[in-house]
Amino acid sequence: MARVYNFSAGPAMLPQAVIEKAQAEMLDWHGTGMSIMEVSHRGADYMSVASKAEADLRALMAIPDNYKVLFLQGGASLQFAMTPLNLAQAGDTVDYFNTGVWSEKAIKEASKFCHVNVVATNTSAVPDRSEWKLSSNAKYVHYTPNETIGGLEFQDIPDVGDKVLVADMSSTILSRPIDVSKFGLIYAGAQKNIGPAGLTIVIIRDDLMGKARSGTPTMLDYKVAADNDSMYNTPATYAWYMAGLVFEWLKETGGLSAMAAVNQRKADKLYAAIDGSNGFYANPVKLSDRSWMNVPFTLKDSALDAEFLKASKAAGLTSLKGHKIVGGMRASIYNAMPEAGVDALIAFMADFARKHG
Amino acid sequence: MARVYNFSAGPAMLPQAVIEKAQAEMLDWHGTGMSIMEVSHRGADYMSVASKAEADLRALMAIPDNYKVLFLQGGASLQFAMTPLNLAQAGDTVDYFNTGVWSEKAIKEASKFCHVNVVATNTSAVPDRSEWKLSSNAKYVHYTPNETIGGLEFQDIPDVGDKVLVADMSSTILSRPIDVSKFGLIYAGAQKNIGPAGLTIVIIRDDLMGKARSGTPTMLDYKVAADNDSMYNTPATYAWYMAGLVFEWLKETGGLSAMAAVNQRKADKLYAAIDGSNGFYANPVKLSDRSWMNVPFTLKDSALDAEFLKASKAAGLTSLKGHKIVGGMRASIYNAMPEAGVDALIAFMADFARKHG
Repeated sequence: MARVYNFSAGPAMLPQAVIEKAQAEMLDWHGTGMSIMEVSHRGADYMSVASKAEADLRALMAIPDNYKVLFLQGGASLQFAMTPLNLAQAGDTVDYFNTGVWSEKAIKEASKFCHVNVVATNTSAVPDRSEWKLSSNAKYVHYTPNETIGGLEFQDIPDVGDKVLVADMSSTILSRPIDVSKFGLIYAGAQKNIGPAGLTIVIIRDDLMGKARSGTPTMLDYKVAADNDSMYNTPATYAWYMAGLVFEWLKETGGLSAMAAVNQRKADKLYAAIDGSNGFYANPVKLSDRSWMNVPFTLKDSALDAEFLKASKAAGLTSLKGHKIVGGMRASIYNAMPEAGVDALIAFMADFARKHG
Repeated sequence: MARVYNFSAGPAMLPQAVIEKAQAEMLDWHGTGMSIMEVSHRGADYMSVASKAEADLRALMAIPDNYKVLFLQGGASLQFAMTPLNLAQAGDTVDYFNTGVWSEKAIKEASKFCHVNVVATNTSAVPDRSEWKLSSNAKYVHYTPNETIGGLEFQDIPDVGDKVLVADMSSTILSRPIDVSKFGLIYAGAQKNIGPAGLTIVIIRDDLMGKARSGTPTMLDYKVAADNDSMYNTPATYAWYMAGLVFEWLKETGGLSAMAAVNQRKADKLYAAIDGSNGFYANPVKLSDRSWMNVPFTLKDSALDAEFLKASKAAGLTSLKGHKIVGGMRASIYNAMPEAGVDALIAFMADFARKHG
């Protein structure tokens, strides 16, 4: 079968060139007679892969020298605990924006370890500055720049003054340039814009490490990971390697500014198709706050959902089923989704609406 | 270059047939037009991979129905914390055998969470029953059946009466049949006998879950993982898939009894070569307690180490350098190492000794 356009929210489509390269060197990496999956993480071969991946990510995101880049495991869900364990003591207050399902999960986990103050709650629009209730003494302010399920995205970095800003960037990292220096801590599960599942990228400002609370498991202490170059124990070596291939691909395709232009164009045309469908399709998010990466939409008649999914799959457009919490459809259009894939989806949607409208 | 015999301690050699199959279906898994790396862990395609891997592992190890099998992340080092967090409360006493570097790491981490009683310490022989100092009130007894660095292996399961037995089986799991019912908890990093790094297998008796101490991060609670079929959040899907291919390969090659026979033969002949070298090579471990999987050995003259490593690599025998803590050489001969690889190593060692003896 030909490769399909896969709109999965994660694990998600990877760039075709990356998968092909991984396949080509699967049995014999760079003439070593071994798969990169089989070599010691402490050997010179693997170390070159690991350090090049980090250097490429630093170049792509223009990460300042006073930030460490960590290649960890456990996904954003483990970061939900690591953040308060490392950046706050029991009883401290921490501030969280609540803009959807992933914000809520982060809040629930942090509440086990600190006093959580919710700054503002809104799942269909970025909360207006006038509604924010920031704490004077918060150890940090956490937000979810892009809500993968709700499809809400902050187009600008919230200004929290001199507070430490923490972001779960799982579904938006690498979609556009960002100013890393505005953040204290950035984390992201890899399985959307970085690589295979099982890898978590953490970008943390030097001065925020070394203060983990007593009783923090060693593996959950950012300082331990940083002091050991993310090799306190064996890292997820193959996922790290794949991430490195994705970073190379991003550099070759023009970096994050070029990617942002394509991403904005892809999102704009898909939202235009939804909004121009005379109500056949709908997206509930405020226009200015819509996600570039995850486009949830409903059909006017949800009885057509099953037919939509069946027909789209037959047309080579897969994994469009929306998250069970919100229902309907969701098109995740990460970096690896070619613009032609979005065009094909738009054409399919128009045709489907014509047939069933 | 032809594939080499790779004696790395982990990440380690994978079965050739497994790597070839992974390569063949990298771009298009079972006619889906997607890599298995790119599909949602919640979709029917991936669920079939995940559940088949678990079923095959259960069959291979004859895991009783009252045990859960979990596919986690973080390696054995994270299990060093998860074990006491889940099986004991602060102040409780737990018993640990100390038979080498990995035992020590487990003890150090557990000491952050409980009172650790060391049952016995010996790094060159399994401690004799008469030397054990078991606590009357220990919540569990932990041991490391195979010490990857020292090359010491328990050939029998220690009898700890009605106490809960916990084992870090990272470097011995699947090397032979074991009686799972003797254990409360078994854990193993995947990167030796299971698959790629970034996956951790946990086998836990039902009644031991649901008692994690207050303040345990959600991602570190076995009950949460079990209740969500190891998909509380996105698991390491590709590593899980690769593990499934390894389990299939093990079944096809005759299961663990067949594997044990080959493993014992491989180890026996390599130790015989070391012991029969007139002192040119040496292994410090008591004969009856030598590891089947990790064979450390020293050269009579350590000034020859560099030449040995250079010449062995040139002969297609790679990653023989010993761990920095013990020096010398180490041949890790896991399931995926063909007997022909061990034969080639033995021939090389004899030739090297002749030239430099």
